This record gives sequence, structure tokens and C-alpha cells, in this order.
Amino acid sequence: MPKERAKCAVIGASGYAGEELVRLLLAHPFADLVAVTSRQYAGKSLADVFPKFSHVANARELQFRDSEAAKIAGMAGIVFLALPHGVSAGMAKSFLERGARVIDLSADFRIRDPEVYKEFYGAEHIAPDLLSNAVYGLPEAYRNQIAEAALVACPGCYPTSILIPLLPLVREKLVLADLISVTSLSGVTGAGRKVEADYLFSECNESARPYGVPRHRHLSEIEQELAAAAGRMFPIQFVPHLVPMNRGIISTMLLELAPGVDEPHISDAYRAAYATEAFVRLLGTVGLPDTKNVAGSNFIDISWRIDPRTKRLIVMSAIDNLVKGTSGQAIQCFNLMRGYPESVGLL
Amino acid sequence: MPKERAKCAVIGASGYAGEELVRLLLAHPFADLVAVTSRQYAGKSLADVFPKFSHVANARELQFRDSEAAKIAGMAGIVFLALPHGVSAGMAKSFLERGARVIDLSADFRIRDPEVYKEFYGAEHIAPDLLSNAVYGLPEAYRNQIAEAALVACPGCYPTSILIPLLPLVREKLVLADLISVTSLSGVTGAGRKVEADYLFSECNESARPYGVPRHRHLSEIEQELAAAAGRMFPIQFVPHLVPMNRGIISTMLLELAPGVDEPHISDAYRAAYATEAFVRLLGTVGLPDTKNVAGSNFIDISWRIDPRTKRLIVMSAIDNLVKGTSGQAIQCFNLMRGYPESVGLL
Amino acid sequence: MPKERAKCAVIGASGYAGEELVRLLLAHPFADLVAVTSRQYAGKSLADVFPKFSHVANARELQFRDSEAAKIAGMAGIVFLALPHGVSAGMAKSFLERGARVIDLSADFRIRDPEVYKEFYGAEHIAPDLLSNAVYGLPEAYRNQIAEAALVACPGCYPTSILIPLLPLVREKLVLADLISVTSLSGVTGAGRKVEADYLFSECNESARPYGVPRHRHLSEIEQELAAAAGRMFPIQFVPHLVPMNRGIISTMLLELAPGVDEPHISDAYRAAYATEAFVRLLGTVGLPDTKNVAGSNFIDISWRIDPRTKRLIVMSAIDNLVKGTSGQAIQCFNLMRGYPESVGLL
Amino acid sequence: MPKERAKCAVIGASGYAGEELVRLLLAHPFADLVAVTSRQYAGKSLADVFPKFSHVANARELQFRDSEAAKIAGMAGIVFLALPHGVSAGMAKSFLERGARVIDLSADFRIRDPEVYKEFYGAEHIAPDLLSNAVYGLPEAYRNQIAEAALVACPGCYPTSILIPLLPLVREKLVLADLISVTSLSGVTGAGRKVEADYLFSECNESARPYGVPRHRHLSEIEQELAAAAGRMFPIQFVPHLVPMNRGIISTMLLELAPGVDEPHISDAYRAAYATEAFVRLLGTVGLPDTKNVAGSNFIDISWRIDPRTKRLIVMSAIDNLVKGTSGQAIQCFNLMRGYPESVGLL
Repeated sequence: MPKERAKCAVIGASGYAGEELVRLLLAHPFADLVAVTSRQYAGKSLADVFPKFSHVANARELQFRDSEAAKIAGMAGIVFLALPHGVSAGMAKSFLERGARVIDLSADFRIRDPEVYKEFYGAEHIAPDLLSNAVYGLPEAYRNQIAEAALVACPGCYPTSILIPLLPLVREKLVLADLISVTSLSGVTGAGRKVEADYLFSECNESARPYGVPRHRHLSEIEQELAAAAGRMFPIQFVPHLVPMNRGIISTMLLELAPGVDEPHISDAYRAAYATEAFVRLLGTVGLPDTKNVAGSNFIDISWRIDPRTKRLIVMSAIDNLVKGTSGQAIQCFNLMRGYPESVGLL
Repeated sequence: MPKERAKCAVIGASGYAGEELVRLLLAHPFADLVAVTSRQYAGKSLADVFPKFSHVANARELQFRDSEAAKIAGMAGIVFLALPHGVSAGMAKSFLERGARVIDLSADFRIRDPEVYKEFYGAEHIAPDLLSNAVYGLPEAYRNQIAEAALVACPGCYPTSILIPLLPLVREKLVLADLISVTSLSGVTGAGRKVEADYLFSECNESARPYGVPRHRHLSEIEQELAAAAGRMFPIQFVPHLVPMNRGIISTMLLELAPGVDEPHISDAYRAAYATEAFVRLLGTVGLPDTKNVAGSNFIDISWRIDPRTKRLIVMSAIDNLVKGTSGQAIQCFNLMRGYPESVGLL
Repeated sequence: MPKERAKCAVIGASGYAGEELVRLLLAHPFADLVAVTSRQYAGKSLADVFPKFSHVANARELQFRDSEAAKIAGMAGIVFLALPHGVSAGMAKSFLERGARVIDLSADFRIRDPEVYKEFYGAEHIAPDLLSNAVYGLPEAYRNQIAEAALVACPGCYPTSILIPLLPLVREKLVLADLISVTSLSGVTGAGRKVEADYLFSECNESARPYGVPRHRHLSEIEQELAAAAGRMFPIQFVPHLVPMNRGIISTMLLELAPGVDEPHISDAYRAAYATEAFVRLLGTVGLPDTKNVAGSNFIDISWRIDPRTKRLIVMSAIDNLVKGTSGQAIQCFNLMRGYPESVGLL
Repeated sequence: MPKERAKCAVIGASGYAGEELVRLLLAHPFADLVAVTSRQYAGKSLADVFPKFSHVANARELQFRDSEAAKIAGMAGIVFLALPHGVSAGMAKSFLERGARVIDLSADFRIRDPEVYKEFYGAEHIAPDLLSNAVYGLPEAYRNQIAEAALVACPGCYPTSILIPLLPLVREKLVLADLISVTSLSGVTGAGRKVEADYLFSECNESARPYGVPRHRHLSEIEQELAAAAGRMFPIQFVPHLVPMNRGIISTMLLELAPGVDEPHISDAYRAAYATEAFVRLLGTVGLPDTKNVAGSNFIDISWRIDPRTKRLIVMSAIDNLVKGTSGQAIQCFNLMRGYPESVGLL
């Protein structure tokens, strides 16, 4: 059955997430990219700003414009917001009021409790009335709700790499929730296209460094979603690191097994949860994840080991932070919202 | 008072550790490099094999030779062994019997218990009689013993980055030893100059990956030295990762504080232990370590934070794996053994 | 009109070119990959060796086998050879005799004159009788012949990056052929998955270096094809360099304009030659090529400038050495040979 | 004979060149670094801004200040200017009038003819009266004049990598000056610590690209110095490229030999010119330069080949752009100006 095509807009298309959305939408068989915005590049074509798209007729013709919600809502039924947190909430409101469905890549609608938002993001939420309508855009956890949603809040990149491996374990009470430790390694696009000295080539190349210690903002959504799975709130330990590569996140999770739990329970839980998921690849107890195996793709690779000496469970995952960690996952949500096959445009 | 010069040999000078030893010895004001060995390069000069040394007259003249202990022991009073484990032990024996003092960079004399050696290295130790004489070459812990030693076993790179931060905390019982977790990130020279597909440029570039899970060999010496500090044995959790840079290790340690311990106790313990150490830089609770700040140097940078949410202590360190992690530390031991100022040739 | 599917085999699928062919064939809408060979990996599945393909059912099932021409020729009508030069020729003969059409990625059939082959490759050609049937697989130059060919010799990566920009200029006599100088920069996959010390991560990272000076083997095919365009033979100056990135070639060509030639003639020639080519993107006199704009794609980006001070023409191109430079171009030839749209599976 | 120590100031110490000057001066046995300036960091210590210097007592104490020439000239006899062109000239004037000797790393005093300066730098020179006093700081060409100079203009990084190899050939008329072509590859620190999107990690990593085509500013000084050697002016062809590494420049020069010139003449000319130079390493016709062999050092490595097919001479050089290309060369000039051994603090 032929699918009805969707008219899409990308608001804030000049960052890495926006650029990656554009890449995926230009190649998507059912999407028509009808508007892209960027204050900085207004008036220039997509092909001018991103020469790698210059062979696509639409990229040569489509010009960046300012973010006029009224006009764009008249053109596009689906609006992707790739804006800084704080800015996104107001824009989402404008688009929703005009009848568009919104897929937000910022943090603005990920946190259900405006107090927690304020604690982690340092400002009052500007559209708290919308929070209860927003669906957390992790298809492996909220597939049905995403399909129906008017407003989807796509997870952060670290949370995606951590929640997909942890949710089944926490939900099934296979691990002791209070003793979860996570160390992550991220490529530099994870910082966005921020023009700051810290992200210059010669500051990042030949450099590995922890940052955001001890309270990275992504903790707020990680803990919210783990709490939903566990039925109670608990803090987790999280230390992110920046490493010199463009794309990719490795998350390494150290976990205490619940009494009586052994390796087969872990493997069973993963298979039960993810055997039919299109984008979860279970490497099991033999393989190990490597960012180069997921680069450019929407997959998450997960492997695990029980350390016979400490009896702890080590779970390791790899994603491409810009695809499964951001824009690919947004497309996965878009496919669900539109009733397209979930993996179309992503394989 | 002018120091007596030392005649030195480097056995196995073609790997990264050997090359770095050569670099440091050629520039050392009191060392005369009189012999270098390498089966592969026998007959070629140091300058031929390592053009970066070609401006040094001695490097143009000194030719790689085979490892004839008898001849070399007659030339050099100090012998550095940069050989694979298993090979090193026999060579050490030959040199010691001929009266040379030996600084071994392999794992062969790091483990005091030959059963543990066998467990982690998979073979019987071939010179177990020497184990009791060997001194673990961590100057911050064994300075006086190193000065007197005939045989020094230089620590591994990960152990150096982990033990220097952990020893004072474990010794003073500021943390609960049984719940220590360590995640490390290493540059690719950490694997040595091994000609294997896994270490090709295009396999490592744009790749981050855990490896050696769950039982990396370096655990044996880490646990041995922590046990010595704690007065009892306990296992630790350790997950190393390979990241795409040449040099550097970041180790991130997650620790449970002992009851009643707070941040000032930690800072005090670090100052008491290391305020006068030439190569330990305490970044405290503000700075964060970055491998680029220690690249090419013998420093270890250490910072720490107490996470107010989990009450855990996060300690982070950075070293250059080839300098403080290997060859610089060997020179530091050499200086101690010869009665030179400890930092000569290293600043 | 639905296309008939093609059964394909990749002989020597464990190198970078083979792996990239596999990637493209697994995603190709009209190709069925029915056999892959590798001595080293015989018995393992594609997914075992290349975990990045593990979500593809065919990759989990298809096992590497030895290169038995008889058996494979019975299975596949199109055989891609991704073998070392010298080895490829014999294998091609076996497959051709059994009725398969062969797309060879080695150098064995690129050079029409066996004497030139011997001069540059240091050995007698082992199947000189086949040379006259082979078509040089540069679709922009030999589209019609490729469509009919039983044996296609895909160009080298440097030649592709150099010939596409130079052929129209030489053909139209817009530049003085005898004074052509080319400098190229290549990523490290250009060396193949050779397990040699020179290509270890830590030998290539932070390293830029010329190599293959003064007579790189690719000169033989560059000069052959330029001679065909000019109607006479002439030597060109070519200096390749290795730079620390995975993929990509930049070629910078310095050219003397023929008397009376000015910028509009150059632009006209390029438009005339390439305006309708699917994979040639003319950046003209404003943009500059960048390998990151062609990474993973089959495009060649070309820009040019006349230096007002020297009156010389500077032409610069960028390709992905593994796609347009090798395996993507092979797929482009495959599409032509099978009568598929030329860009199918490549956009 | 003990040397008199020199009090030094670095004006503009927050960029890569300034930071590298600070590194070299802190370790220099005869230099006292008494003042560093930076508008951005005024009030912070050197150790705060550059943690890698934090073990040096002077770096912990010395605070960045504003560039008050009057006060600083009273403190330091030698002033290094690491400022943008245009800004440097005025500052140099202020310091010279107060009796300091000035070593300028900008382009402001490299060009003797203010008209050429204006042509390449797009502005009137603001201190043209000083041009005749400035000495071009290439010790291999102007050693005696540098020793006596009050104002030294350190060469650019590309010019250093190009002039040292070319000057003897042009001076001896061994090559045809009118047909000189140069292609260079530079690491990203060559662009300075400019906070611009073009130099972000993810824009440079996995990217190689030509830039500054066809008229890079460094051409002005290259041509000026070659004209001085040849006795007449002629344009050269120069195409620089950016490659993904921190440090290093490779310059590859294509040259037409003068009639009757053969390889021995070239080798003789290089030996005659440079056999006794401390920082020129002649690799001859066997070795090839590699940036990793000069990283962190003040050496220039030079090799050459005559192409038997084209009869052209290919000369290739490697330097560290921040050391021999900038700050190391400035220290070399400083040593000459102060009568210290030329290589002190640089080996």
C-alpha cells in the first residue's frame, strides 16, 4: 500500500543534529523536506552551506529561512526542532498551536517534572503545560505512545546508550538499582557545532578527558526513565568523557546482580526485550561493542559479561551519537508517528 | 658535586617503550647509552631506524645488536629490559648474574606470587627465585627500596595511573576497598608496536572500544599493591578502553567513602602523600585531568570530586602511558638507583 | 520495468575494498550476494568478521569460503575480484572461462601494454591474452564499452581522482600536456588492510609524509589514459602523500594553459563533459573540495582556479578512495553491465 | 664562560605560538620569563590557563597582564610579539622606542616593500619607517644580521619549510626559478587558536582540503627571499592544504633542473649550505621526511629525488610548524641576539 508522503520542516538545521536530520530526510522515501531554518544562514541554500548535499536538487533549491512558525506550520505537518534547550519549548508551543506535530531534539520536553528541569537546566520551564502531553521518544520503550503523539521529546545521546541496555535489567529487577555506575566516552560532535575553544581540533585531538563531573544534565532523564522502570527513584553514578573522534558513544555500565541472578537470566531478559527490535543488536557475552561498527547507522550494539572475580555484571553499548543518539532516533519516531515501517530511511 | 656517569643498555629497543627509553637516555645528562638491541634491526644504527634521533651523534654511531648478555653486561652497569613478558625473566637473570643492575619494563617481576603470575600470564614463571629480590618500581611508594635494588620491576601503565591515586586513600582507609571500580581510556601506543590488524590506523581511528573484559592482566599488580596498602586482599573492578590517540591514559575511579569521611579528608590525604612529589600534580576539586596536559611528560595529574547525589568519591587521573606509565618512570627509578636527583632528565 | 536480479560473488572480501563492496552489494536493490571468499576467514560468517553487517540476515548466513572458481562460477554471474595484483589475473581467467563476467579491482587488467605492466609491477603478466578484451572501468570515459564488457578493470584510486579532472582538458588541448604536475593526499585505507608496521595507528596518526617517490605504480594507468586522450604519450609528475584520516583523496593538479585559453574555456569544457554525469560535482571557481564532503559517497568534487600571477591553472578534486576510488566505481560499472540505472545502490 | 641571563616578555601569550614560546622560555637555561600578556586572560596565572605548566613555580606565580609597553619595557630587555599582523607593528614601535629588542612572530616586518605588504595584507603598513631596520629571522640565511638586530621578523611557517630547501638551489642557479611549484600540507595549529567553525574538531578530523588558493599571503615573503637569492623577482606556484593533525608541515617542491645539473650538484649544494647547521637534517636521496620525526623539535628534514622519467627535481621537507616554523625559530634568533649557543634550549 503506497504511503502518504509527509511534508517536513527542520528548525535549526545548521548544527550537527540538524544537518544529520537533513541528510536522513533528503534520502527518506516518504518525506518531503519543505523548510529549513537557520538565523545564521538565512538566504543561503542547503547545498551552499552543506556541499555534501549539492547533488540533491531539493538541496540546491531549498533556502534557509528564519523560524517563522506561522508560515512554516502552513507548509509542514511534521516539524523537527533542533534548537538549544530553553529556545525549543516556545517554538514547540507555536507549532503545536498551529496544528503541526513536533519532534523536539532538545531537552525541553524530556523531563516530566518542571522542578527537576529547573534543577538541572537552571531555569523555569517556559511551557510546563505541555509537559504532560510530551512522549519520551525512545521507541524501544514508548512505541505506541510515540505513534499517537503530537509532541515527541527525543532522548539525549547518553541516555539512549544507557537506557536501552539498563531498562530490561531494572524492570526485571535483575540488578541492584542503587549501585549502578556508568562511564561513557563520546566523540566530539556530541558537543554540537559549538564554536568554542574547547572544541577546536587541536584542543581535542590527542586529548581524552572527563567532563561534566559530577552532575551531567542527562542524569535527569536517565534517572526519570529508570525510576519509571523500577517503580522508585534512585540516583545513578555517571561520568562522561570526551575522546578524539567525530561520532560515537561507548557506555560501560557496572552493575551488582540481584541475589540469585546469573548470566542466563541476563541473556534471556535481553532476548525477550530486544530480539525483534530492528535497531538493537545483541552481541552477547562474546563480542564487544566498537563505535566504528555503528558509525552512520541507527543501531545500538550491546554486549555483557559477568566478572567471575567480583560477581558484577558489566554491560557495554555503542551507538552513533548523531544517529541512534539523536537524528536517526527522531526519524524512527517520525516513522512511527506517520505509520511508516519503523526502519524506513534508516537501513 | 659532579655525578658519576652511568653506562646504560636498552634490550629490546625497537618497541615504543624502548624507543622512548632511548629518547630519554640520549638526552639524560648523566647517562651514556652504550648498547641497544633488536633482533629485527641488528646492524642498523639508531638513527636509521628512528630518524628523529638522527641529529644525535651517538644515535648515528650506535648500532642495534643481538641481545648477547655476556658482552653487554661487560659494557653497561645498568640494563633496561623492554622485552615481552616471559622473555624478560631469563634475560634479567643473565644480566644480574653478570653484575648488572636491571630495570625491567615487562610484567615478569611485578607479581610477587608466582601462582598469581601463572594465573594471569598463563605460564610458569621461569625465574621465581628472583621474585623476592625485585622491587616494584613505583617511586612514590617504594623510593628507598628502589634506590638499593639490583632488580626493579617497573609498573604497568594502567597500574601507575590507578595506584598513585588510590594508595593514599586505601592506606588511610578513607574508602571502602571492596567497592572500587575503575574505568580507563588508553591511547594506542599502550598496545605496543604490535603489528596486528587490530592496531592498524583505520581500525583504531574513529573507534572507541572496551577490551580485556573482564580480567585484564594488569589487575594482578593493581590488587597486589592495593592489598599491601590495605593489609588484606580484595578484588577491584576494572574496564579498559582503547581510544584513538597516540599517547595517554585517563583512569576514572568510583569509590565509596568510609563512614565519616568527607572532602577535606581526601584533600588532606593527597597533600600529605604527594605535596612534595616532583611528578604528582594535584588538580584538586576544580580542575580535571586531560591527557594533552601530560603528553610527553612524566607527570600524573589527579583531581577528585564528591558527588553530592550519590555521596561517592570520583577520582580521575591522567598520565602519558609511555612516560610516567613506562619509560619515564624507568628513568625515575634509574635516577634513584644511581643517586641522581630524581627528576633529572625528566623535566 | 522490474529488473532481473544479479547473483554476485566477491573474491577476496576481507580487505577494505572487499568489505566496501560487500556493504554496497548488501544494500543494492538488484544484487544478491551469493558468495564471499577469504582464505583467512574461511568458515566464518560475514557478520562474524564484520559485526557492522550483523543486522543483515544474509550476512549472518553467508560464510567465507575458499576461492574455488568452478563452484563459484556456477553460483554467480558477476564476480568481483578484490585481490592483490598478480593473483587477480589468474583468477579472472578461471571465471571468464566459466562464463562469469568479471569486475576486477586489482591493477592486473588496467594496463594495455604488458611491457608497461612489467615495468611498473615488476613481473610478467600472466594472462596477456585477456588484456585486449578488458575495458578500463571509468564510466565517465568508457560507459558504452563497460556495458558490453566481460572483463572490467576498475581504475586505481589516485587515477580516478586525477583522470576525471584531466581528461577533458587534455582531450580539448586546453593545457600543455608535457607540464602536468599532480600532488595527492590519501587517507590510510588507501594502503589496504595491510598488516605492516608503517600503517599502525601510532605510525600514521600525527604523521604526514610523501611516499612512492618518484614512480608510483598508478602512473602507468594515468599516463596510458591521458595518452589516449591526447593522442600521444607523455610523462606526468606525481607525488602522493599519506595523511592521517581513514578515507579520502585530494588531488591538486598544476597545469600550464595552452595559448589563448582562459577560464571560460575551462568551465565550458567541464560543463560539456560532466553536466549530466551523476557522480561528478563541479564546484567551479568558488568552492574548494574537501574529503569530508565525499566520505562514504561515490562523488568526485572538482574545483579550479587560474592563478593570476603565474597564469597557471590549478585543478583540485576530492573522492572517497574506497567508493568512487574503488568499490563504488565497481558498482557503477556493475550497474552499467547489467543495464540498471547507473546510480542505483550508490545514492 | 657563564652567560648573562635575559629578561623576556611574551606579548600575546594565549595563542599557540605564544604558548609554545612560553614552553621554550620556561625551560631555557638563560631566559627569565618576567611578563606575559593576554587581554582575555588578564589576572590569571600561566598555570591556570595552561595546566601543563603547573609544575613550574614561575608559571604558578606569573599572571597574564594587559599589554602596557611602558611598564613591560622596564622589566624585559627582549620582547617577543605573538600578535596578529597589523597589531604587532604598533606594539613593536612602542617597545623599540623604550629600548627593548623585539622578536616579532607576526608578518608585519617580514616584507621589506610596504607596497607588497599592502597588496598581500590589504592595509597600509603602520610603521613603514621600521621596515629597513628589521631583519628576516631565518638564521640559516641571516645569522650575522640577526645577532645585531634590534628588530627581528620571524618567518612564517610555510616560508621556513620552503625557503631553507630552495635557497641554496636558487642561489646556485641549479634550478629554473620561473618554474617552481610548491604543495604544502599543514596541521591545524597552523591556523592559530582561532575560534572559528572551520577549525572545530569535527570539521577538520577526517578532512583534507586545499585552501588559500591561489594567493596565500606567505607567498609575499617566499618570493621576496627567493628574489634576494636569485637576484631577480619571479612568481612561484603555491598550494597549501589543511590535514587532520595538530602539528607539522610537509612541503613538496617540484623543480626544473638548470641545463647540465644532475643529482651530485644538488647533494653538494645542500651539504655545502647545511652540513654544519644544527637544525637542518639532510635525508638525501634515500629517506623521506615525515612530520612525526620533527614533532616538538626545531629540526627541518629535507630529502630530494630526481625523477628519471620527467628529469625534474622533487624536494620534500618537514618541520613542526610551531617550533622551527614559529616559536623555536624565534628562540634560535633570541640565542643569536644574546650571544648564547644557537641551539641552547632547543635540543
